[in-house]
Amino acid sequence: MNTPISFKILKRQPGTLARVGIISTPHGDIETPAFVVVGTKATIKGVTPEEMKEYVGNQVALANTYHLFLQPGHEVIKAAGGLHTFANWQLPTITDSGGFQVFSLGAAFGKGVTKFAKGEAPESESVNKKGINVYSREAATQHGKLCIIDEEGVTFTSHIDGSMHRFTAERSIEIQQAIGADIIIAFDECTSPSADYEYQKEAMDRTHRWAKRSLMAHKQNYEALKKQGLYGVVQGGRFTNLRQESARVLGDMGFDGFGIGGSFSKEDLKDSLKVVNEILPEDKPRHLLGIGEPEDIVEGVLKGCDTFDCVAPTRIGRTGTIYAYTGKMKTSSCGTLEYPETVKLNLRNEKFITDYTTLDPLSDGYVAKTYTKAYLAHLFRAGEMLGPQLASIHNLHFIVSFTKKLREQLLQM
Amino acid sequence: MNTPISFKILKRQPGTLARVGIISTPHGDIETPAFVVVGTKATIKGVTPEEMKEYVGNQVALANTYHLFLQPGHEVIKAAGGLHTFANWQLPTITDSGGFQVFSLGAAFGKGVTKFAKGEAPESESVNKKGINVYSREAATQHGKLCIIDEEGVTFTSHIDGSMHRFTAERSIEIQQAIGADIIIAFDECTSPSADYEYQKEAMDRTHRWAKRSLMAHKQNYEALKKQGLYGVVQGGRFTNLRQESARVLGDMGFDGFGIGGSFSKEDLKDSLKVVNEILPEDKPRHLLGIGEPEDIVEGVLKGCDTFDCVAPTRIGRTGTIYAYTGKMKTSSCGTLEYPETVKLNLRNEKFITDYTTLDPLSDGYVAKTYTKAYLAHLFRAGEMLGPQLASIHNLHFIVSFTKKLREQLLQM
Repeated sequence: MNTPISFKILKRQPGTLARVGIISTPHGDIETPAFVVVGTKATIKGVTPEEMKEYVGNQVALANTYHLFLQPGHEVIKAAGGLHTFANWQLPTITDSGGFQVFSLGAAFGKGVTKFAKGEAPESESVNKKGINVYSREAATQHGKLCIIDEEGVTFTSHIDGSMHRFTAERSIEIQQAIGADIIIAFDECTSPSADYEYQKEAMDRTHRWAKRSLMAHKQNYEALKKQGLYGVVQGGRFTNLRQESARVLGDMGFDGFGIGGSFSKEDLKDSLKVVNEILPEDKPRHLLGIGEPEDIVEGVLKGCDTFDCVAPTRIGRTGTIYAYTGKMKTSSCGTLEYPETVKLNLRNEKFITDYTTLDPLSDGYVAKTYTKAYLAHLFRAGEMLGPQLASIHNLHFIVSFTKKLREQLLQM
Repeated sequence: MNTPISFKILKRQPGTLARVGIISTPHGDIETPAFVVVGTKATIKGVTPEEMKEYVGNQVALANTYHLFLQPGHEVIKAAGGLHTFANWQLPTITDSGGFQVFSLGAAFGKGVTKFAKGEAPESESVNKKGINVYSREAATQHGKLCIIDEEGVTFTSHIDGSMHRFTAERSIEIQQAIGADIIIAFDECTSPSADYEYQKEAMDRTHRWAKRSLMAHKQNYEALKKQGLYGVVQGGRFTNLRQESARVLGDMGFDGFGIGGSFSKEDLKDSLKVVNEILPEDKPRHLLGIGEPEDIVEGVLKGCDTFDCVAPTRIGRTGTIYAYTGKMKTSSCGTLEYPETVKLNLRNEKFITDYTTLDPLSDGYVAKTYTKAYLAHLFRAGEMLGPQLASIHNLHFIVSFTKKLREQLLQM
C-alpha cells in the first residue's frame, strides 16, 4: 500500500550532499531543509500553538514518546483524538521512539545500564502474556540499575515516580500509533558516544533487529499505516564502518525515512554523516536527531540531512540567552554555503538592563523587532514568565528562519 | 489647563448608582464598567501584550509603582520611553501609588508598622536635602520594623533585597510621572481593615494631606500634566462616617477620578461603597482598588464603581483554577442586575485528566473554546508553562467579558 509520507527532491547542490525538498504528510508539507521544534510533553515550553504559527513559523513539531507514555499516557492522547487534536498542533508532527530517553533518563547516560545477551536472563525474571521478559522492581534493584536491556526490549524506571515500565519495538510502535503523529520512529538502542566498538556493534545489531520488528508491528495496524510513516534510526556511534553498515542494513528495509541518532560531536558530524548519507536511499528524507545549533545545521545540510530537531532554542531561552546575528557572513568548512554568523547573548548580563535596542535588529522575527533587551533583562531579573516566553519564541523563530535561509540559498545557486 | 482624562456618562440605572460611561485617556478610551488587568511588574504574568489584545480583550492595564520603583527602577522605564513603550502596552494604563505595597510587603499587614505623630521623631533620624526625614537602616532595625510612617512619608525596606527606601507624596508622583501611565494615583496610607477607629482616622487624615501634596506635586510638572491624570484614594476602613468624610474631602480637591481603597470585605462592599459613591463627584470615574471576583464586580457596579482590578484571574490561573459559567442566571442582591452564575474549577482534580470538553463551552473566549480540560490538566500535572499561560488568558478574558456583559445589560435596560 501507499505510505502517507512522500519526499520530493527539488534541487541538489553539486559537489555536496545538500538537497532541497518537500516532505508531504497527512497534515501538510515540510519544505526542507527544515528545523523541527521540540515539544517534549506535547507542548513547546512557553510557546502557544498560535505563537508557533504566527511568530515562529515552523512547519513541523516533535514530541517525545517516552514522556507522553508516562504523562498523560498515550491512551489519554488517543482518546482526545490524537496528538494534533490534544495539543492543538495544526501541522505535521513526529514522535521519536522513546529509545533515547529510556537510556538517558532511565539511567545515567552510558552508565547504570545492565545488558543481557540473547538467551541470558536475570534472576527474578518472569514472562508476560506476549512472551516478553518482565523484570520485577526487586530484580532491577538487585541489579542496582534503572535500565535493563535484553534482546526483547528495555525495562526501565520512570524518572517521575520510579515506577517500572518496559518498552519493546512492538510496544513503542503501539504507543506511537496511539499518539498519532504523522511520522513515527522505530525503537532503537541508544549508546553513549564514548562506548567501545564491541558495545556499539552489539547495540547496533540489536537496533537493526528492533527496526525490523518495528516495521512488522507497524504494518499490522492498517489504520495507522494509512496515516503514519515510519522512520528507521541509523546507529553505530563514532565508528565509520558501523555507521556504514547501519545505513546499508536499514536502507534496505523499506522505511519512509531515516533518523540519524547517537549524540554526535562536531567532529563526528563531518565524517560519519557524510558516509551515512552516501549510503541511505537518496529518495527518502533524513532527520538528524537532537542536533540543531546554527553551525551544526549548516554542516548537516551539506552532509545530506533534511530535518533537524533540538531543545536548545527553548532551553537556553528559558534561562535568558538569545540568538542574534552579528552582521557578518561566514562560509561553511567545505566552502559551498554562505551563512550569517550568529552569537548568543545572555540577557542577564548587567549591560542589558539599559540596552533599549531590540532583541535582534538584524532578525526579521516579530519578537526580535518588537521587544527590547532592556525589557527582557527586566523580565528575567524579576523572575517573570514572560521573559522565558518571549526569548523562546525569538530563539525558535531565529533557528527556523536560519534554516529557511539555507534552503533559499540552495535554491538560488 | 485641561486634564488629559475625561469621563462621559452614557446611561444611569434608575434606583441604583450603576452607570455606563467612557473614560478617555491619551492612549484610548475605556468603556465602563470595565475590568483592569494587573501587570504588577510591567507584565501580565504569563500573557503577552499580543494575547491581551487578541484573546483577553481588556481595554486597560495596571502596573504597580512600588514594584517598578524597585525593579527595574522608574528611571529605566523613563529612558525606555515610558511604560507603554517599555512593556509594549498599546492601551490605557494606570499605576497605583505604591501605598498599598509599601504597607503590605514592607511589613506584615497591620503589624510591624511604626508610626510617628506630627513633630515626633525617631532616634537616629537625619534630614535629607529636601528637608525630609530619613531613617538609617539601623534606626529601622532598632525599632524592629520594616515600615516607618511619619507625617512626611514612609520609610520601608525592599521585599527583594532589604535595601531601605522612602516614599513621600512628592516622590510617589515623581516616580509615577517617570513611569508614564495615563492615570496615576495619589500617595495614600493603607491600613488593615481590622484597625480601630482612632488608627483609621489618623491614617485617613494623613492620606488627605498627602493627597493635597500629590496634587501639588503633579501640577508642578507641566509635561506630565498634559499626559497623565491623577486619582485620589478614598480611605476610612470599615467606618461609614470616615468613608463619608474621606469622599467629601477628596471629592473637593479636583482629582480626575478616584480610587476606593482598603481591602473591603464583602459586607463592607454593600454599605461603604454606596455611601462613598453617593458623595464623590458624579462626573468623575471611580476605581475599586484590588477587588474583582465576579460577584464583587456586580456589587461594585450597582454601588457606582466604574473600573475594577484584581490579580485573582492570573493568580488562580497559575495554580490550575479556571472560571467557568454554570449556565444559570443569578440576580443581584438588590434585584436590578441579572448575571451569569460562575464557578471555579480546579484542573488538578483527577477527573479532568480525561475530560475532553473545552475549558468553558459557555464562554466565547478563544482559549475557552479551543483547549480542553484534559490538555490543561496534563500541562499542570507535567509542570509545563503553557498550563499557567492558557489558564491566565482564559481567566482574564472571562472576567473582562463578564464585566462587559454587565455593561451591555445596563445599556439595554
